[in-house]
Amino acid sequence: MKIITTPFPKYLDIEIVEHKAIGHPDSICDGVAEAVSRALSKEYIKETGSIQHHNVDKVALVAGQSIAEWGGGTIMKPIRIIIAGRANPSISVATTAIKATREYVKTVLPLIKDEHLIIDPMIGKGSSELITTAENIVANDTSFGVAFAPFNHIEKTTLGIADFLTGKEIAREFPEAGRDIKVMSNTDGKEMDITVALAFVGKYLHGIDNYRESKEKLTELLRNKFEVQNLLINTLDKYDSKELLYLTVIGTSAEQGDDGATGRGNRINGLITPGRPMSLEAACGKNPVSHVGKIYNVVAQFIANRIYSDTGNAAEVMIQSRIGHPITQPPMVLIRSNATDVKSIVNEELGKLPEMTLGFLEGKFRLF
Amino acid sequence: MKIITTPFPKYLDIEIVEHKAIGHPDSICDGVAEAVSRALSKEYIKETGSIQHHNVDKVALVAGQSIAEWGGGTIMKPIRIIIAGRANPSISVATTAIKATREYVKTVLPLIKDEHLIIDPMIGKGSSELITTAENIVANDTSFGVAFAPFNHIEKTTLGIADFLTGKEIAREFPEAGRDIKVMSNTDGKEMDITVALAFVGKYLHGIDNYRESKEKLTELLRNKFEVQNLLINTLDKYDSKELLYLTVIGTSAEQGDDGATGRGNRINGLITPGRPMSLEAACGKNPVSHVGKIYNVVAQFIANRIYSDTGNAAEVMIQSRIGHPITQPPMVLIRSNATDVKSIVNEELGKLPEMTLGFLEGKFRLF
Amino acid sequence: MKIITTPFPKYLDIEIVEHKAIGHPDSICDGVAEAVSRALSKEYIKETGSIQHHNVDKVALVAGQSIAEWGGGTIMKPIRIIIAGRANPSISVATTAIKATREYVKTVLPLIKDEHLIIDPMIGKGSSELITTAENIVANDTSFGVAFAPFNHIEKTTLGIADFLTGKEIAREFPEAGRDIKVMSNTDGKEMDITVALAFVGKYLHGIDNYRESKEKLTELLRNKFEVQNLLINTLDKYDSKELLYLTVIGTSAEQGDDGATGRGNRINGLITPGRPMSLEAACGKNPVSHVGKIYNVVAQFIANRIYSDTGNAAEVMIQSRIGHPITQPPMVLIRSNATDVKSIVNEELGKLPEMTLGFLEGKFRLF
Amino acid sequence: MKIITTPFPKYLDIEIVEHKAIGHPDSICDGVAEAVSRALSKEYIKETGSIQHHNVDKVALVAGQSIAEWGGGTIMKPIRIIIAGRANPSISVATTAIKATREYVKTVLPLIKDEHLIIDPMIGKGSSELITTAENIVANDTSFGVAFAPFNHIEKTTLGIADFLTGKEIAREFPEAGRDIKVMSNTDGKEMDITVALAFVGKYLHGIDNYRESKEKLTELLRNKFEVQNLLINTLDKYDSKELLYLTVIGTSAEQGDDGATGRGNRINGLITPGRPMSLEAACGKNPVSHVGKIYNVVAQFIANRIYSDTGNAAEVMIQSRIGHPITQPPMVLIRSNATDVKSIVNEELGKLPEMTLGFLEGKFRLF
Repeated sequence: MKIITTPFPKYLDIEIVEHKAIGHPDSICDGVAEAVSRALSKEYIKETGSIQHHNVDKVALVAGQSIAEWGGGTIMKPIRIIIAGRANPSISVATTAIKATREYVKTVLPLIKDEHLIIDPMIGKGSSELITTAENIVANDTSFGVAFAPFNHIEKTTLGIADFLTGKEIAREFPEAGRDIKVMSNTDGKEMDITVALAFVGKYLHGIDNYRESKEKLTELLRNKFEVQNLLINTLDKYDSKELLYLTVIGTSAEQGDDGATGRGNRINGLITPGRPMSLEAACGKNPVSHVGKIYNVVAQFIANRIYSDTGNAAEVMIQSRIGHPITQPPMVLIRSNATDVKSIVNEELGKLPEMTLGFLEGKFRLF
Repeated sequence: MKIITTPFPKYLDIEIVEHKAIGHPDSICDGVAEAVSRALSKEYIKETGSIQHHNVDKVALVAGQSIAEWGGGTIMKPIRIIIAGRANPSISVATTAIKATREYVKTVLPLIKDEHLIIDPMIGKGSSELITTAENIVANDTSFGVAFAPFNHIEKTTLGIADFLTGKEIAREFPEAGRDIKVMSNTDGKEMDITVALAFVGKYLHGIDNYRESKEKLTELLRNKFEVQNLLINTLDKYDSKELLYLTVIGTSAEQGDDGATGRGNRINGLITPGRPMSLEAACGKNPVSHVGKIYNVVAQFIANRIYSDTGNAAEVMIQSRIGHPITQPPMVLIRSNATDVKSIVNEELGKLPEMTLGFLEGKFRLF
Repeated sequence: MKIITTPFPKYLDIEIVEHKAIGHPDSICDGVAEAVSRALSKEYIKETGSIQHHNVDKVALVAGQSIAEWGGGTIMKPIRIIIAGRANPSISVATTAIKATREYVKTVLPLIKDEHLIIDPMIGKGSSELITTAENIVANDTSFGVAFAPFNHIEKTTLGIADFLTGKEIAREFPEAGRDIKVMSNTDGKEMDITVALAFVGKYLHGIDNYRESKEKLTELLRNKFEVQNLLINTLDKYDSKELLYLTVIGTSAEQGDDGATGRGNRINGLITPGRPMSLEAACGKNPVSHVGKIYNVVAQFIANRIYSDTGNAAEVMIQSRIGHPITQPPMVLIRSNATDVKSIVNEELGKLPEMTLGFLEGKFRLF
Repeated sequence: MKIITTPFPKYLDIEIVEHKAIGHPDSICDGVAEAVSRALSKEYIKETGSIQHHNVDKVALVAGQSIAEWGGGTIMKPIRIIIAGRANPSISVATTAIKATREYVKTVLPLIKDEHLIIDPMIGKGSSELITTAENIVANDTSFGVAFAPFNHIEKTTLGIADFLTGKEIAREFPEAGRDIKVMSNTDGKEMDITVALAFVGKYLHGIDNYRESKEKLTELLRNKFEVQNLLINTLDKYDSKELLYLTVIGTSAEQGDDGATGRGNRINGLITPGRPMSLEAACGKNPVSHVGKIYNVVAQFIANRIYSDTGNAAEVMIQSRIGHPITQPPMVLIRSNATDVKSIVNEELGKLPEMTLGFLEGKFRLF
């Protein structure tokens, strides 16, 4: 294992940051993929004693069709969730996947009914090569994990807004605020400019005025709480008819016209940050034992966090795997930081890999 | 439109770079999505006079099952390509999509037969809001485009290897080299280390020795041509049995165990570069008229290229859209470059947007 | 309307009779088709004031995969139910179909869980021609209904056994008796010979002896109750291993290897009687307003029953429709009976057609 | 084997007879099922030396959507053909099924294009029990075959019209006559009344007058050739607009609004005859080695034909199988005929069973 370090690049003044909240079609696919992976892992442990190879990181969501109404609305066509992937067939993969998907989606979209959802698992066997490697805990792909720490102000604010909007307080005070939210922020180095797209739920609203009032209250709340004046919600709204507002039946654009896919939304730190190091790997849905596209992204984040918390220095971390290598010994770790002596941190965090599996099963790590 | 510039960040010494070639499952999905978008666009023009709203950027590929053999092999289960998305239903969307998909896949996988492929279009209507905006050529999403120029040495080398391996010379001299190729490179600032995964085609090989010999020749060829000593092909191979080699029937891992999805592979410059600015948008499959997730990525690349060619300065460019805004006037353009006076370049390139549509239809721009 | 009568043909001495009970894959498809039609009809009435055109008589069931065990067992792959058909899109057809299917299947297979079932509605719009005719209550097809009365001894016995085996007493006393049952009877004019195939449920059995004992008890019970000595259950059983018995997890061969389709099982009198007049129309799933393939079969049965009950004469009845004709005036009614003056019965029963719709909605008529 | 005979029942005076021609959605499914069975059988022989167990008799067709036009028209949504069933997985079942389906459909619908058709095989493994029996050529089901001979006048006429309309002469002289044809005949014992529904092909017609003229010519031709005055074609036509005619793009109602399923159309003699003995078994798609639901229907027909040709006596034949019994020794053969000494005919025809397999592979026997 080579560990290579260079100085941290100059901090960015200008930046664009995006977050897709849990009810966004892409995030639903991320969440479903991970829920299925966790359910399969537990079932493998129960039935075979250990987690077998699987990779269900290709979930696709085909939008339904709906008619939103004040006080209600109708789902005309169900949402279809296709779970493509591979899994060792020693357990009942498909039924486990269906169950985990249904349960997960209900936590994200509390108003969804069984008949609004078609779940179609298309999970085949893996190639023999990769299944055998799973047992030895060697990397099952040539891939890399990427992370950075700490968040700067715009990143913190963007994620803070998103997490606040999908949190308990809003659920209680603003039940009309759906969980399909997209926060798009930019800064020119001086000011932040934030646009929020938020799917309102017709059931809890009784007309255009009510919608407008709720939106204005939420806007004020966010502006004050996050100290950002240039914040707008649903900029495309026209108060002429409900068709020109962002109104939904169950709180997601997936009910009408917006498809989704795993790996197309947030990175494991919860953000999309084009100006900062990012991995393109979908962490969700990959097995937590050998799939470096998942594990190395999380470990890279842990290393970056540790460097920052232990030394006060910002850090960008990239870990490369090579297929067939033991996962605890990646061939290459690249670190951009002004911290010195990061090797012990790297080694310590990589050493925790075996016990991290449990953390994945318990859903302890943010993955999207 | 605000155009904001800051100095270009210090060049990276250490970097990881990846490319997935045209036969990789993710790239197949990118190519299919774009082929369908182009076919739909042409059909819309023919039938309605102009390109209607569509977005077919959620293509998923469910791997088949195959038995590779020396001198041949069998596809046991077909590859399934699901085309999720939205399109104005004024034309025969589904049949157009099927035809375009079949034709495209044959160009990438010349050995594939009709019966090896199930094409399942699941393309619904879009939400009314977005369909109406398509006519006025305003941005149909709040999104951004990202690009940088020029490529550094490792980036150039990585893409050079990939394009060479999928080019005419290799097709002629090494027909056994399939087009599902993944090139993974890293550099510590001094040396490059390159790993190539390449799906060999059983039909053109008559045994393990033949495979080994071909692989060694290709390795030598690449090492010499691209002046890189640390280059390996198919590192996981064991010469004990064909099951332990990377052997396929039609030259792609999609035939056995590897699923794919649009937007999960290369960015529009052809690479995955975690240490450099990247957009997460899938450019492929989006309509070339109003879909900023496609158009702004390409324009950002043009601007970066122009800054570099006109001024000799490297540049990173981010363009942000806002849903409902005219696409020729993005609210924000962020540029990191040491070049001065980039505004005229930005304005000129944005001014070319309307005529770019034709370029998309003709497939003139690299998109993955 | 021409009503033509000829004498009843000589009664048959020799005959073969078959029944597929409610848990048989073909019957599941019949039941699902009818459950969906009823749910759609009710929803049409609720939303539009009247039943709109629909025909969902092409339900297909793709078997799952299961591992039966004493005391339990596992569904490895879910059962897929595809609902092909046509329905006026003024209501949420797909979600209504999914809900009705799930609810119906649970009544037939009480042990089935949500994740054991994929329900995939593929219900499109009808052709414009037929949708318009639905409003005027004219026949929507050129078709015919067929029936006979009364049942002879072997027919009565066959249906009696089937209904007894799926009834409350057996459910209480023999919970191990699944509802996928096929009764196949023949007679040479003197004796009956009856073979019963019955899916046993592993959950309620603890071993081969237990299975054998239950089967022997059931055999005795049926022989005595129906006074037939030549009656055998599961003739293929070999008591060497559970794989050689007819053992299931949830009581249907649909869980493992047996596909089904609407219209492939019982006629509306509950039987398959090759030597007696039969319609090939699937009654289930057709709309109860204009679909003569459904309505005329039931009316023909009513006419035959009435002729027999009023006159004591056996009767075979065929009613032909012609597309576009008012359904209360079929062009041709053919009756084979020794009864005289059947015209008033025919007219009376045809006159009840309009009010029969409600009977279909309430599930009052046997349809399979 | 018991062979039981009783006198032939009195001939019917009144009867209804129906035929669905090769382009009818149900018949397409019959033809596809059989084409797939034949292709699988040949592939099994090639790869394993003998025909393995399979049963693909649950083909479903989900109609497309089309816009018929004079001189052309457009298929807006493809036709979907789902092939449910079971087959021994020792060969590439799915790809073989796709290829056979595509080839077959093109022979029936010459105007169909690849992109008009989605073929989705859902063929799983059979239950272990049945696969093992396939090797010993014992009956794989408890089922029966049914047949009668000879045809009476209305039956001969009905089938004659259908076969003439789908024959070479019509194809040459009336290319506008599609092959989705339904012939519905009845007789009151004196006269025949025949209704033909025939899908006209827009491509070969240039307007309403042309359609009308063609239809009138065909009507005249059929009336003269088959000596039946009461014969009408497309009785629902209104010459006000093309939407009120039976006009199609590729000559089948499957292109717009009419779904289909295997086993829902003609019996193996080519007709639906509710007043005559009929089997409900779908002969098409079943394996020709052990599947009595296919084989016994054909053998019963051979026996009935032989009785009639050898003795001049009409005959109705029913053969019952019992699962697990050698197929050459059915437990029961029931014959209604005035012929004496039919046993030798029965034995001879049953003796030919082993060599019949080849006849199925070569498509020598009418099956629908």
